[in-house]
Amino acid sequence: MTSTALLTDQYELTMLSAALRAGTTDRSCVFEVFARRLPDGRRYGVVAGTGRVLDALEKFRFGEEELASLRPILDADTLDWLAEYRFNGQIDGYREGELYFPGSPILTVRGGFAEGVILETLILSILNHDSAVASAAARMVNAAAGRPVIEMGGRRTHEQAAVASARAAYLAGVDHTSNLEAARTYGVPSAGTAAHAFTLSFANADGSDERAAFAAQVAALGVGTTLLVDTYDITTGVQNAIEVAGPELGAVRIDSGDLGVLARQVRQQLDDLGATGTKIVVSGDLDEYAIASLRAEPVDLYGVGTSLVTGSGSPTAGMVYKLVEVDGIPVAKRSSRKESHGGAKRAVRAARSTGTIVEEILLRDSARGQSVPGTDGLDVTELQIPLVRDGERVEGLPTLEESRRHVAHGLVTLPWEGLGLSHGDPAIPTRYLNEPESR
Amino acid sequence: MTSTALLTDQYELTMLSAALRAGTTDRSCVFEVFARRLPDGRRYGVVAGTGRVLDALEKFRFGEEELASLRPILDADTLDWLAEYRFNGQIDGYREGELYFPGSPILTVRGGFAEGVILETLILSILNHDSAVASAAARMVNAAAGRPVIEMGGRRTHEQAAVASARAAYLAGVDHTSNLEAARTYGVPSAGTAAHAFTLSFANADGSDERAAFAAQVAALGVGTTLLVDTYDITTGVQNAIEVAGPELGAVRIDSGDLGVLARQVRQQLDDLGATGTKIVVSGDLDEYAIASLRAEPVDLYGVGTSLVTGSGSPTAGMVYKLVEVDGIPVAKRSSRKESHGGAKRAVRAARSTGTIVEEILLRDSARGQSVPGTDGLDVTELQIPLVRDGERVEGLPTLEESRRHVAHGLVTLPWEGLGLSHGDPAIPTRYLNEPESR
Repeated sequence: MTSTALLTDQYELTMLSAALRAGTTDRSCVFEVFARRLPDGRRYGVVAGTGRVLDALEKFRFGEEELASLRPILDADTLDWLAEYRFNGQIDGYREGELYFPGSPILTVRGGFAEGVILETLILSILNHDSAVASAAARMVNAAAGRPVIEMGGRRTHEQAAVASARAAYLAGVDHTSNLEAARTYGVPSAGTAAHAFTLSFANADGSDERAAFAAQVAALGVGTTLLVDTYDITTGVQNAIEVAGPELGAVRIDSGDLGVLARQVRQQLDDLGATGTKIVVSGDLDEYAIASLRAEPVDLYGVGTSLVTGSGSPTAGMVYKLVEVDGIPVAKRSSRKESHGGAKRAVRAARSTGTIVEEILLRDSARGQSVPGTDGLDVTELQIPLVRDGERVEGLPTLEESRRHVAHGLVTLPWEGLGLSHGDPAIPTRYLNEPESR
Repeated sequence: MTSTALLTDQYELTMLSAALRAGTTDRSCVFEVFARRLPDGRRYGVVAGTGRVLDALEKFRFGEEELASLRPILDADTLDWLAEYRFNGQIDGYREGELYFPGSPILTVRGGFAEGVILETLILSILNHDSAVASAAARMVNAAAGRPVIEMGGRRTHEQAAVASARAAYLAGVDHTSNLEAARTYGVPSAGTAAHAFTLSFANADGSDERAAFAAQVAALGVGTTLLVDTYDITTGVQNAIEVAGPELGAVRIDSGDLGVLARQVRQQLDDLGATGTKIVVSGDLDEYAIASLRAEPVDLYGVGTSLVTGSGSPTAGMVYKLVEVDGIPVAKRSSRKESHGGAKRAVRAARSTGTIVEEILLRDSARGQSVPGTDGLDVTELQIPLVRDGERVEGLPTLEESRRHVAHGLVTLPWEGLGLSHGDPAIPTRYLNEPESR
């Protein structure tokens, strides 16, 4: 088991050290994860990474190696405390795959001050990364309007972020990943056939030999494979592909150029060659806008890379982890514009009988199940579920597949303007009820 | 040893499978890593990640677990080949910390087609991530004009990307990281004191108690610590800080608001309180532009988070891994605008006797040491060094500290306009000599 304990900012441990001196480590605290705003112009976010947070929490242990590396910066009492550390508190949160909006209490961590504060960085790293990718991916899936999307951006992001990106993209509705570690670790369906290098590798002293490359690929992978036709001339590439594989060829891929124009030309050429069932895969710098612009074109499948794994302009979700309650007293930072809303919150979402959501309501001092003022005639859904009880992961939490269906369902509940790709306001407003005065 | 072998795109292994059938796995190939362009408007890039690539290469082995997960998608011959895999070829490249420009052959991998092609994703993931962060960090360090910079963005990126980001930032001249794993793994100096949560945790039924929090922190960390003064009212916070710690207090940190205005006010207040040696640390959504705008203010240290770990708008360096030569024959993709320059290249940089660099020259068919046409009166430096020979890492490669000094030295060699923060062209042009016709 590789420890996750050092995936932490130093100040968390120096705070622990100071709290130990002051005798405040065990003050009963509530920490909340939320985003003050959605990424620029987005209308919703998708919660992703919750499952990975729970995995990482189980490995958050300070073993001998971790403690040795901390010895130069921490006192003996602090090191002793860390050696015994395991989280024993409670965590509730939005289920993975839930939509979120500004202020949504995505995760609520209850426990002693010290046991909660030292989880800040790890929890935020995971949720900020995965939610950024899932939120961008959901927009791409929506823009693809039912055509499958393959995630193939691993090479454009950190090698481990690539694995988490593939998971988050799948959660958000992407169909396949190119990443083999994501297939192994999370069971994400993988896909992939060949790159330009394969075709180029058949060049010889007489020149290029695209047909030999295609023949080799078909021999190994069958006629159902996807042949990459734009290494040299695309029209010749399509001609070669069908001559070599026959009209039963699975697909051709175009990775460059004006994809809309090329898709139309290639479709016509394929049809003329009798390859009416051969699909067209496009890739190359696609984002949700490019995908949407291809909606009228004969494209069967999108391969998305850079923009997906980098959150399409918003590579982090900007979530924060804030102390909101101490010994039952609401607390909040008060200087400048970075105000937080103090106090632990209950979160519900109100929807019309048609299923369309109309607002998110954050309540203080009201227990689960109690009626929510101002929601007459609306269906009210609780948004938080128990995730950890007394330090142990709750059993029967949603699987990745279930969470994936939950995203798809959630997108259907958005007001129609909520799915727009242009810049806009959050799809629904957030209302605070019974807000306390914070200290 | 955790294997890195599955941090790979599926198509690399299906290409291997097809190459095995066609008998082309051992064709002698040269692959090159380069960036077609610098991120939007940047004038230089910083090569980072080379050391991590060499670490990852040593762990690129297909063990029983990896092979088991590949069995559903690969044939037996391919699995057998992978079980025996280890890279036995040659790698040359720009040393880590070298500046790069469009087309610079940052890494050149020589070996059989199959042994080279399957490294594509892993090599690109590392170099694209680390170089994006280092390239942004160098601009921030330059904007800070000698004032120290702390990297504290771990919470805004994937938890493992955070560690690599801290390393890349340090390489580029950042002074400290908040990330404890980066301190352990790479020896990056770490720093950090306290967050708002610490101050808030001292709230009680009577209200907030900033003084108690400050006293606890000083008791644990000494008067040299940094007190965060903007949880409540900043002026009161500074007053409390000096009253509690005395005028020998190490520093105060401001994390929100108009940092320039606040820094001036706080400096005046500290001076009035006799705390003339107490430093001012600022943080909160800083990027290179915000850092530069604070140059005239009494700021002693910058804490940089989100923008650093996300490459300040360019979270990936956009490098590609292209097959450029097969059995001595230059090859290149020819369709559309994504042309590559075929053929393995020698790279040199020409500089005036003052040290200022004037151009990068990529030459075909000329051995190291041979004179380079058009460089009379200029100093010519070879840019590639041997990194791997017959699969083994070359001994005595530059350490992280040496590479860090190399970045600092490199920035001094740029023409003056090369350090501008505004959008511009690459600081020096790239010239191709003796370019062959590719197949």
